Amino acid sequence: MEFDSPYGNKYADLLSNVSNFNIIESTLREGEQFANAFFTTESKIKIAKMLDEFGVEYLELTSPAASEQSRQDIKAITSLGLNAKILTHTRCHMDDAKIAIDTGVDGIDCYWSSSYLNFLSRKGIEVRFSSEDSFRSDLVDLLNLYKTVDKLGVNRVGIADTVGCANPRQVYELIRTLRGVVSCDIECHFHNDTGCAIANAYTALEAGATHIDTSILGIGERNGITPLGGFVAKMYVADKRYVSSKYKLEMLREIDNVIANEVEIGVPFNNYITGFCAFTHKAGIHAKAILNNPSTYEIIRPEDFGMTRYVSIGHRLTGWNAVKDRVEQLDLVMTDEEIKAVTQKIKTLADIKPLGIEEVDTLLRDYHREIYGRNQ
Amino acid sequence: MEFDSPYGNKYADLLSNVSNFNIIESTLREGEQFANAFFTTESKIKIAKMLDEFGVEYLELTSPAASEQSRQDIKAITSLGLNAKILTHTRCHMDDAKIAIDTGVDGIDCYWSSSYLNFLSRKGIEVRFSSEDSFRSDLVDLLNLYKTVDKLGVNRVGIADTVGCANPRQVYELIRTLRGVVSCDIECHFHNDTGCAIANAYTALEAGATHIDTSILGIGERNGITPLGGFVAKMYVADKRYVSSKYKLEMLREIDNVIANEVEIGVPFNNYITGFCAFTHKAGIHAKAILNNPSTYEIIRPEDFGMTRYVSIGHRLTGWNAVKDRVEQLDLVMTDEEIKAVTQKIKTLADIKPLGIEEVDTLLRDYHREIYGRNQ
Repeated sequence: MEFDSPYGNKYADLLSNVSNFNIIESTLREGEQFANAFFTTESKIKIAKMLDEFGVEYLELTSPAASEQSRQDIKAITSLGLNAKILTHTRCHMDDAKIAIDTGVDGIDCYWSSSYLNFLSRKGIEVRFSSEDSFRSDLVDLLNLYKTVDKLGVNRVGIADTVGCANPRQVYELIRTLRGVVSCDIECHFHNDTGCAIANAYTALEAGATHIDTSILGIGERNGITPLGGFVAKMYVADKRYVSSKYKLEMLREIDNVIANEVEIGVPFNNYITGFCAFTHKAGIHAKAILNNPSTYEIIRPEDFGMTRYVSIGHRLTGWNAVKDRVEQLDLVMTDEEIKAVTQKIKTLADIKPLGIEEVDTLLRDYHREIYGRNQ
Repeated sequence: MEFDSPYGNKYADLLSNVSNFNIIESTLREGEQFANAFFTTESKIKIAKMLDEFGVEYLELTSPAASEQSRQDIKAITSLGLNAKILTHTRCHMDDAKIAIDTGVDGIDCYWSSSYLNFLSRKGIEVRFSSEDSFRSDLVDLLNLYKTVDKLGVNRVGIADTVGCANPRQVYELIRTLRGVVSCDIECHFHNDTGCAIANAYTALEAGATHIDTSILGIGERNGITPLGGFVAKMYVADKRYVSSKYKLEMLREIDNVIANEVEIGVPFNNYITGFCAFTHKAGIHAKAILNNPSTYEIIRPEDFGMTRYVSIGHRLTGWNAVKDRVEQLDLVMTDEEIKAVTQKIKTLADIKPLGIEEVDTLLRDYHREIYGRNQ
C-alpha cells in the first residue's frame, strides 16, 4: 500500500529542500576520527565502492596532508571512476591544497583565505568554505564572512555544530538567515553529543540547506555525527518516492554490518532500520494494529530495506489478536473464545518466564488437540 | 569553569519549559515492551529505587491488568515509599481502573471516557488523558477532545508520536497550539524510529510541554523512545544548573549498565554520555583545542557525569600539540621542533597500524633518550 506521509512537506514551502538534497558521506574522513577506526587502503576502497553503489552524491576523504598513506589512498579512490564526487578536507595552507589537487579530487573543503580560493578556482576544483562551531560564532561575523566568500565564488558554505549541542529551532533560524545572504549551496555537519544530529539535518533542509554530512553508523569524533541509515530513514518518511529512487535502500544492512565489523563494534541494538528490534512489535495493542494494517505503527516498510517484521507473542503483555494470527499461521481452527483462553494461559506462563516461538506453537497445538482431538 | 551555554533559552520565552520540566520514566512500562525485556519483581524494585535516587519525578508501570504478576509488582513498588510518583497506564475500562487504584498508584493514564474520568477524580487520583499517534490525527478533533477533557479536570493531556516519525517543527506547532487550548499539563511521548526522539522532546518543552516520557537507553517497542541519558544530556546543555540540581548525574553510567545487563544488550558504542567513545578526542585539531580549553569541544563536562576525557594520540591523524601534552605528562623535556619530529615518526608508524598508549610512551622515551642521553 502506498502511504501518503504526513511527515514531509505538507504545503509548498519555498525554502525546503526535503525533496532535493545531497549526501556528503564522510565515513572516510569524519569516520576515521572515530576512536576505533583504522582503515587500510583495501577497506577504504571497499567502503567507497559500497557507498557509491548505494548512491551517495559525494565521498569526503581525510586530508592528503595527514599522512603519506592518506595521500596515496585518495589517489587510489579518485582513480576508481566512481559516480560519487570525491572531496577532501584540508587545512587552509597552500601546500595542503597543492597536494590535494594532485590526488585528483573533485573538491576541497577549506577555511578562510582569499588567495587560496583564487588558486583553487583557477584549478576548476569545487570549493567548500566552512567554519567550525558555527552555533557559538558571532552571527554578524559569520554572515559577513559567508557573504564575502559567496561573492568570491565558492560552491558551498558549510555550517558545523562541532560540539553537538545545537537545537532544531536554532538550526532553522541560522540556516534560513544564511539562505537569504548567500546564493551558493549550504552544507551542514552535525555532531550527535546531545542526540539531535538527525533532527538538525532534517530541519536544516527545511530551512534551505542543500548538502548533509553523514557517516555510516554515525562514526566520528566522540559519539559521532548524523548516521547515514538514520538520516535516510528520516528522509524516506518525508518523501519515500524521492529517497527510494536515489538510494539503494536494501544495501543499508550490509553497509552498517561492514563498518561495524571494520571498526570492531556491534551495530547498536536500537539502530535505525538495521538494529535487531527495529521492526519487532510486542505489546498486545500494537500487535493487533500491525496485523490489521501495518501502516498503523510502521511508516517505514521493512520490505523496502530488505528487512522483515516480527510480532512477538510469548510474553505477559501479549494480546489475543496476535495469538489469533499465529493460530491461523499454524492452520489451526479455534473460536475467539478459545483463543482468548489460550492467550490467558500464555500470559500466566510468561509471567514466570517468557516463551520462545516454538514453545508458544507447542502450547497452541496441544491446546487445540485437547479440544478437538488429534485428527481434526 | 562555569560555562554560559548558548544552547538554552537565550531570551525570555514565555512558552518555554526548558528550565521547568518533569521526567516520566517509563522503563517499567514502555521498556517492558522492548523485545528482550522481562523484568522480575526483584529487578523492577531495583530499577525503581535507582531511578528514584537519580531524581526522576514519576515512574510509569505496566498496567496491572496485563498479568497477575504485573499487578503484584505495582503493589510492591507503591509500598516502597519512593519520592517519585507512581503512574500506571491502563486501557479505558472501568475494571482496569479499579484494579489500578487498588495497587495504590498516584496516577493513571487512560483513553477517552467521561464516566471513567469522573470515577477517577472522585478517588483523588492524578489523571492523564492521552491519544495515540497524535501527529496523524485530525488537528481539530484532537483540540476539541483535549479541550473537553481539560474542562473535565484531567491533570495532564498526552501527545504521542507512536510511529516515531514526527519532525521538531511539527512538534513545536502542535504543542504551541495545544498550549493555547488547555490549561492542564502537557506530557509528550516520542518514539525514535527516525532519530528525532530527543530533539522532539526538547522542542516540545520549548513550546510549553511540561512532562517528557523517557526510558533507560530508550528501550521500548521497536527501537524505543527518548532515552533518559540522552535527554538529560540535552537538558544539561540547555540549563546545567537546573538539571544538575534536580538529578544525580553521576548515577547515569550505573543506570545504563544495569539495564543493559538486565535486557542482555550492549550499551551502544555511541551512547550519549556513557558510550565508550563519548569523550574520546582523536583528530589533531580537536585534541589541540581540547587541551587548551576543554569547553571548545566539550559543552558537556565529563567530570559532572563521573566520566573522564581521553585524548587519543597513536594514530595517523594525530597532531604535535596532543603529543606535546603527553610528553609533558611523562615529565620529558623537548623543544617544539623535536616534538614535531617525533609526531611525524608516530604518524609514519601509525600509517601501518595504530599504536597503543604504551607504544607511544616507549617511542617518546626512546626518542628523548636518543637526543638527551639516559641521565638527563
